[in-house]
Amino acid sequence: MSTASWPLGVHGISYGADYNPEQWTPDVWRDDVRLMREANVDVVALGVFAWSSLEPRRGEYTWEWLDEVIDLLHDGGIRVALGTATASPPPWLTTQHPDILPLDREGRTLSPGGRQAYSVTHPAWREAALALATRIAQRYGRHPAIAAWHLDNEMAAHVSRDYSDAAAAAFQVWLRERYATVETLNEAWATTFWSQRYSDFAEVLPPRLAPTVTNPTHELDFRRFSSETWRRWCAELAQTVREHSQGVPITTNLVPMTGSDALDLFRWRDTLDFVAIDHYTIAADPDRHIELALVADLARGLALGAPWMLAEHAPSAVNWQPVNVPKSAGDSLLGTLAHVARGADAAMFFQWRQSLGGVERFHSAMVPHAGTNSVGWRRARELGGLIETLDEVRGSRVTARVAILWDYEAWWACELPSSPSSEVRYIDHLRALYSALWRQNVTVDVRHPSDDLADYAVVLVPTLTLADPATAATLSAAAGAGAQILVTYFSGIVDLDGRVVPGGYPGIFRDLLGIRVDEFAPLLAGEPVGMDDGSAGRLWSERIEVTDAEVLRRFTSGPVLGGAALTRRSVGRGAAWYLATRLDDDDLERLLLHLCSVAGVAADQPAPSGVETIVRRDADAEFVFVLNHTDAPQSVEVGGTDLLTGNVHGESSIVPAHHALVLRRPRGRSQEPPVRRRRDG
Amino acid sequence: MSTASWPLGVHGISYGADYNPEQWTPDVWRDDVRLMREANVDVVALGVFAWSSLEPRRGEYTWEWLDEVIDLLHDGGIRVALGTATASPPPWLTTQHPDILPLDREGRTLSPGGRQAYSVTHPAWREAALALATRIAQRYGRHPAIAAWHLDNEMAAHVSRDYSDAAAAAFQVWLRERYATVETLNEAWATTFWSQRYSDFAEVLPPRLAPTVTNPTHELDFRRFSSETWRRWCAELAQTVREHSQGVPITTNLVPMTGSDALDLFRWRDTLDFVAIDHYTIAADPDRHIELALVADLARGLALGAPWMLAEHAPSAVNWQPVNVPKSAGDSLLGTLAHVARGADAAMFFQWRQSLGGVERFHSAMVPHAGTNSVGWRRARELGGLIETLDEVRGSRVTARVAILWDYEAWWACELPSSPSSEVRYIDHLRALYSALWRQNVTVDVRHPSDDLADYAVVLVPTLTLADPATAATLSAAAGAGAQILVTYFSGIVDLDGRVVPGGYPGIFRDLLGIRVDEFAPLLAGEPVGMDDGSAGRLWSERIEVTDAEVLRRFTSGPVLGGAALTRRSVGRGAAWYLATRLDDDDLERLLLHLCSVAGVAADQPAPSGVETIVRRDADAEFVFVLNHTDAPQSVEVGGTDLLTGNVHGESSIVPAHHALVLRRPRGRSQEPPVRRRRDG
Amino acid sequence: MSTASWPLGVHGISYGADYNPEQWTPDVWRDDVRLMREANVDVVALGVFAWSSLEPRRGEYTWEWLDEVIDLLHDGGIRVALGTATASPPPWLTTQHPDILPLDREGRTLSPGGRQAYSVTHPAWREAALALATRIAQRYGRHPAIAAWHLDNEMAAHVSRDYSDAAAAAFQVWLRERYATVETLNEAWATTFWSQRYSDFAEVLPPRLAPTVTNPTHELDFRRFSSETWRRWCAELAQTVREHSQGVPITTNLVPMTGSDALDLFRWRDTLDFVAIDHYTIAADPDRHIELALVADLARGLALGAPWMLAEHAPSAVNWQPVNVPKSAGDSLLGTLAHVARGADAAMFFQWRQSLGGVERFHSAMVPHAGTNSVGWRRARELGGLIETLDEVRGSRVTARVAILWDYEAWWACELPSSPSSEVRYIDHLRALYSALWRQNVTVDVRHPSDDLADYAVVLVPTLTLADPATAATLSAAAGAGAQILVTYFSGIVDLDGRVVPGGYPGIFRDLLGIRVDEFAPLLAGEPVGMDDGSAGRLWSERIEVTDAEVLRRFTSGPVLGGAALTRRSVGRGAAWYLATRLDDDDLERLLLHLCSVAGVAADQPAPSGVETIVRRDADAEFVFVLNHTDAPQSVEVGGTDLLTGNVHGESSIVPAHHALVLRRPRGRSQEPPVRRRRDG
Repeated sequence: MSTASWPLGVHGISYGADYNPEQWTPDVWRDDVRLMREANVDVVALGVFAWSSLEPRRGEYTWEWLDEVIDLLHDGGIRVALGTATASPPPWLTTQHPDILPLDREGRTLSPGGRQAYSVTHPAWREAALALATRIAQRYGRHPAIAAWHLDNEMAAHVSRDYSDAAAAAFQVWLRERYATVETLNEAWATTFWSQRYSDFAEVLPPRLAPTVTNPTHELDFRRFSSETWRRWCAELAQTVREHSQGVPITTNLVPMTGSDALDLFRWRDTLDFVAIDHYTIAADPDRHIELALVADLARGLALGAPWMLAEHAPSAVNWQPVNVPKSAGDSLLGTLAHVARGADAAMFFQWRQSLGGVERFHSAMVPHAGTNSVGWRRARELGGLIETLDEVRGSRVTARVAILWDYEAWWACELPSSPSSEVRYIDHLRALYSALWRQNVTVDVRHPSDDLADYAVVLVPTLTLADPATAATLSAAAGAGAQILVTYFSGIVDLDGRVVPGGYPGIFRDLLGIRVDEFAPLLAGEPVGMDDGSAGRLWSERIEVTDAEVLRRFTSGPVLGGAALTRRSVGRGAAWYLATRLDDDDLERLLLHLCSVAGVAADQPAPSGVETIVRRDADAEFVFVLNHTDAPQSVEVGGTDLLTGNVHGESSIVPAHHALVLRRPRGRSQEPPVRRRRDG
Repeated sequence: MSTASWPLGVHGISYGADYNPEQWTPDVWRDDVRLMREANVDVVALGVFAWSSLEPRRGEYTWEWLDEVIDLLHDGGIRVALGTATASPPPWLTTQHPDILPLDREGRTLSPGGRQAYSVTHPAWREAALALATRIAQRYGRHPAIAAWHLDNEMAAHVSRDYSDAAAAAFQVWLRERYATVETLNEAWATTFWSQRYSDFAEVLPPRLAPTVTNPTHELDFRRFSSETWRRWCAELAQTVREHSQGVPITTNLVPMTGSDALDLFRWRDTLDFVAIDHYTIAADPDRHIELALVADLARGLALGAPWMLAEHAPSAVNWQPVNVPKSAGDSLLGTLAHVARGADAAMFFQWRQSLGGVERFHSAMVPHAGTNSVGWRRARELGGLIETLDEVRGSRVTARVAILWDYEAWWACELPSSPSSEVRYIDHLRALYSALWRQNVTVDVRHPSDDLADYAVVLVPTLTLADPATAATLSAAAGAGAQILVTYFSGIVDLDGRVVPGGYPGIFRDLLGIRVDEFAPLLAGEPVGMDDGSAGRLWSERIEVTDAEVLRRFTSGPVLGGAALTRRSVGRGAAWYLATRLDDDDLERLLLHLCSVAGVAADQPAPSGVETIVRRDADAEFVFVLNHTDAPQSVEVGGTDLLTGNVHGESSIVPAHHALVLRRPRGRSQEPPVRRRRDG
Repeated sequence: MSTASWPLGVHGISYGADYNPEQWTPDVWRDDVRLMREANVDVVALGVFAWSSLEPRRGEYTWEWLDEVIDLLHDGGIRVALGTATASPPPWLTTQHPDILPLDREGRTLSPGGRQAYSVTHPAWREAALALATRIAQRYGRHPAIAAWHLDNEMAAHVSRDYSDAAAAAFQVWLRERYATVETLNEAWATTFWSQRYSDFAEVLPPRLAPTVTNPTHELDFRRFSSETWRRWCAELAQTVREHSQGVPITTNLVPMTGSDALDLFRWRDTLDFVAIDHYTIAADPDRHIELALVADLARGLALGAPWMLAEHAPSAVNWQPVNVPKSAGDSLLGTLAHVARGADAAMFFQWRQSLGGVERFHSAMVPHAGTNSVGWRRARELGGLIETLDEVRGSRVTARVAILWDYEAWWACELPSSPSSEVRYIDHLRALYSALWRQNVTVDVRHPSDDLADYAVVLVPTLTLADPATAATLSAAAGAGAQILVTYFSGIVDLDGRVVPGGYPGIFRDLLGIRVDEFAPLLAGEPVGMDDGSAGRLWSERIEVTDAEVLRRFTSGPVLGGAALTRRSVGRGAAWYLATRLDDDDLERLLLHLCSVAGVAADQPAPSGVETIVRRDADAEFVFVLNHTDAPQSVEVGGTDLLTGNVHGESSIVPAHHALVLRRPRGRSQEPPVRRRRDG
């Protein structure tokens, strides 16, 4: 990732939206620029879906409207994050090349009519899309309005895995790169099982619908391939654009949902100049503000601590949930500020003006269907004003003493079919651990197992089913240096090939943890298991033989009555803990509080229940974000100048219900932010 | 619709069944005619599925058996509604032309083995089917036994929308007719969204399975096209038959289920000489008698008030529900009489004799598997006797002062994906409003928004999401003339192109209602909302700005606390009401009672709870149908001669449990039935 | 079935596992043989999935590894049940012939990547697979290690019905064999219904996805064809192998799950030299031990009373259930002994050594991932020791005075769509009847309707929807000779063509039972119905006219209030009972106890609740298996020498919780086992 500032030419925290002028007439464009200025909009993402408007027939380009819009924006002082317009092919392309259409696992063609109906591996697709991106970069790459490049859009959001013949051919090439010989592949995939031995790479197909469950390493590699294929496409677009637009920072809007394992986002770090994400909350999730915090912390983790861009979130309701509940004023304000608090230096909405037709016509926008005489518009304008007050926050950083590991390969391995329990879902336990600390206002970094973990006091390792042996070494070193490491059930079971490490579970972490398990005992849905400290667990138990650890809790019911449920092995100045069940939320919070207490970790800024606090710091100052998610005013023991209002608070401050403070105070000495590195660099 | 009497040659209320003699041997045919006479059967639908029996190989016809059956029936005095035998192609046709088979949305071929496995747009299908229909019409079109034509069968019941290449070609032709230029289509469909702009009609496909949600106007037009394609096929068959059979009335058995939005039935009015419907109740629905009444009233609405034919209902159990519960004696009797009460002049069963093989072998019939020594047969015979007593009811009409609007285009628009709430189902609220009035014995006409509404005192407009601006004018005129108009949530949102009318919801009805909404607030499933009169709502709320109306109720909980829930705007001598939530049933009934009371509308014939009353009238007499759905005898304050028994009742009458009265009394002056017209004619 | 002893060269009860050495290195093979001897393993199934390891490219064979393994096993005294290695084609075969891949009902290709991805009817498949089987039989057919042939593997487990064009062609051939003329087929299938009349066999396709429900006899015959196609494939493999391996008994591992109706297993009796089954319990089923007993009794029924082989069960957890719960020590021990108690002379696990890769890597094995320092290995070794103590049980037989009929054709007919109630599931009532007797320790034989039933005192006939008229005669004869016959609802409805027998239900059994039903009255889910003895029923009721029987119970609620619920007709020295509803379990148990009491049938060996007893007998001795499924020690009134421990018990014995006794006592005179025959031989 480059350290270029982005978006070029914007000061402070960027505020803006996706802008799709092709849906409107030129008179509306003029009104738009006027209103953008009124709302303190700095930057818009432009042209993301403009292909069919820019190239209505192959090779016939209609640049005039875009020329005019860019000039209008530039004249109005609005900066442009320019799209490559490749997010969805125009009808003429798939009419000419129907074989560009992707196939799903069941062999069904995914047809035009929505968006993203293409095989990203198909040569005809790549040729047409790169031709367009080249033309756009040539025409606008040096235009003074251009503040950044916004490549494509939400890659893999709808076609994360393509099972077409084009994909099969590309998969074979990728496998040849990875394994060199088919014998190596056979070994990695254990193809002697069920007579699956390949005699040539050309025999390997995507794991299409089969009579029964398909080879797990085949599945694992197809997920790797699919993720990597999208990343390479992104890199190819980036290279194309960069050639004609030196110095303009490049990104794409990643979609790090807790519900999607499509892309191994950690591998995209070197592909982009800065991290940008889209994030949408789920209305039916009562803890959606915690999920938001987790994803924001993931974005910061992808950025290795650097500021990042919130490229899309919703002003109010979306259109794709079963019931599209609008956001309350509080949800809207706190949702935006929570992203900024956790490291976003840009907060952009989808979208500027609500569409009258098309699939997203009921998705909220800054200018709603009702026009400017609306709560939506007034709220968008007020938020623009508030964000103006946060200019000096830009570039400051969040620091944490607790890391939680997030690994897409482990996610894939954890949820492959034919596992001990299909009730064990990767994100469930990761989120449970994270949520327990969120409720205590303990700041957490989301890290990849390959990152440098040396400076953390606590490292949480949930359901890391697949693990590199090197990760055991990293964790052992961290523990040796004083960290408390907590590994949970169904971790360290398989190696990078998805093959079980024999000799007793959890093979990869057996020595680190000082335990050995000869049999899992997953629990039927709804079946609880008790422990001798009164805790209750679900989903999982197992028969642990303690080889070099102390037993802290034992099961008092369930299939391994009397067996160890929680163990601890001293490692150097720290320790490696193991938790053998999915604790109920309150019990998990209690355990994590204990672990933090042992590690000397506490909330950066304590606050009453339901009040979220996060601190951003730069060389001179701390910015304490205080977000009150409760229905009553709350008092926090922190003072400073509230940037939002300019009010100065003394030792303590009152934060109104569903409202926020952003308190600036002088930088304390004790919280020097450590520099974060990836382990390999 | 013609005003020809139908079926030709039948007096009084027709009684009969589908008759499939090809399943039986000639000796059974003779027995059948004898039994039909015993049961007072007047008319049978014949030859509906006879194609493979009439043309076992292409061009080889075997008329002899049908000749004989028709003559036997004619000799027995049984009239024939003759089928075109095109309801399902014989195996030889799809063997010769496998591309006749339709495709579903997912691209799956729908194979032979059931019925209706053909693309109605496929030239080879049309050619073969029209050839057969022509031959049948030539041979039997002037036979004295023929009382009516029964075209095809339950069109679109199984293949309502076909996604094949044949359908694609026909869709392109239809779109060209509708839009003339592709630019007009692009504008209507808002194809600048998601890069969907077409450069040629030939690029447009059916909305097949796509990576994500497809364009809503594309979907809307495909529903229009699919419905219209079936109607045109029906018209083509009608024209073919009419050529050889002047003066014989033509119909087809429509299937106006509350569960199916396949066909825009209101557009079929001019295609048929009289309306015929099939109706089957759902055993698991405790309010199935109300659903029956609604569909019967819809049939009358399709017929613009004229009598109609119940072409199929079940004597007892059907075969296609999860559990096929037989009808009780009461359900059977009251079900039949309810149709007649609401305007049916013919009540026919599916089918005459229960099949021994085939998919419907467990569907009840007038002659059951058990033969004539059976409850089923005795019931069928008794019912025939009762229907004989109703001769003079024929041609009389039901009148109503309340109309409820039913619009298939609004249904489609309401339930398109990516709407504010997938919990809002079109038929749910329509049925809720209807049921509330049914429980009060207030007679309701089901009307299309384009119908003349001038003479109604109350007009109900549930979830009319898509609306023609002309409808607002019609409603405004009705209100001006004194009607109480009730529009409910999620109405008037989009125009005929499915594009949102901007400036505040409900765009189409904003002026009529004197309100303006800037944001919907749909409710999560199970989330109630209270109102200041103690009512409770579900599913929906919204933020209403009252511009020219009074607020009658306000929300006391939920996302728009304090906001308007029910408003009323005075319009001339009437008023336009707006209801912003899905009231619970009791509260809805209370509101509608109030509305009726304001409008001076009451039950035609009051009755205790659970007793259904409907009045048919002709120039001289009224026929008061009193249907007791309760477990006890009930008393109603109405007298007259009970046609069923000949008994004369004085001021009040007792109706036994699960039984009925049909009381004839002289025509009162006050209830002059107004003539109903379509708005445009 | 031949009477050859099997596996050749093994004494006593065989113990072993599937062995897949191709997954391991040669050093592991040597360790395996040593450990097998340590665990008293007698026999292993070898080479089942070895195709791609034996023939890595077409015509290139790599026998060396298998030569070595067989010799090692032979040298170690381990006998070999050799596979034909045809269980799953290698990738090169389906790469060369992609049209070998089967299609599912929806037309989706079932691709490689799992196992069994082939059309069993495809000529290219048969050619390649028979070539391999021939080579294997030629090479090893006379090897002294070979104890039996294990053809293919779990035939039809994943592709029970194939809808490909290859299957269509084979189906047409089969239909021509069955019906000779297409007119006969038309008559049997009732194709006049819905215009389905065929003019040529070439027009008949598999019942692929259709617009609506497909012809029931078409479906029935396709199930027959699919089952028979697999059986013929098995016979073809057997013939191929037998040619090169005279005298070696042949079997295949059938999978008689209570959840699968894929194969009509009764038709396989003459195809195999002995019966072998796989059986896996469902962890979430609290009565899984009863289900196990039922399947074991079915295996014995398939073997016509002869001993059979348990070819696969799981040492502990499997990998394919939602939650794969490991077996407790008790479940493991009692599960194995229950099979032996019910006639198994061999108990084999899947598999020997737990795989590190592949789909089944989390399936338990005798040597677990953790190695020999594990509960799993210790348990496997101990079990081997216990089974050694049961040598003399071999060849002894179980006898029963109660038979329950099991018929796959009736199963198919019972559950075809468009039946009176989709809630009526064939196996549900069969299992309910069986379970009631299991709880009373009444031994039950599972028999086919075509078997000889003359010697049974009680015959249970649950939901035998389809029946041969000859079955009515068989049952009548049995009753005449003194048996109590109990027929239950929805039996005897259709003939072998699936056509309803007219004149009143249950047509086939009307005379036998002395009743006549004119209408079914199935009950909605959750709707109970009461009887005058306080019993409660579910699912079903019907209107019975008693023509020649006495009414024992009447309905006191529900749709046929006052109607007969249980009837009895005296027939000779016995009686024919009819039960018209699905009694609740306790009421059913009460009824069956009464029936047994009337028939003079009691438990072979009474025991407390939760203690299972079964007796195997030979000419000299009885072996009483006492299996305690409860959490406490239990006392049983039986003595003898416990083979497992050598302890001698007097008049009564104590069996520890979750443990067993196998008591040998001298043969009593009164329990002479009758010889069982099939009716037709």
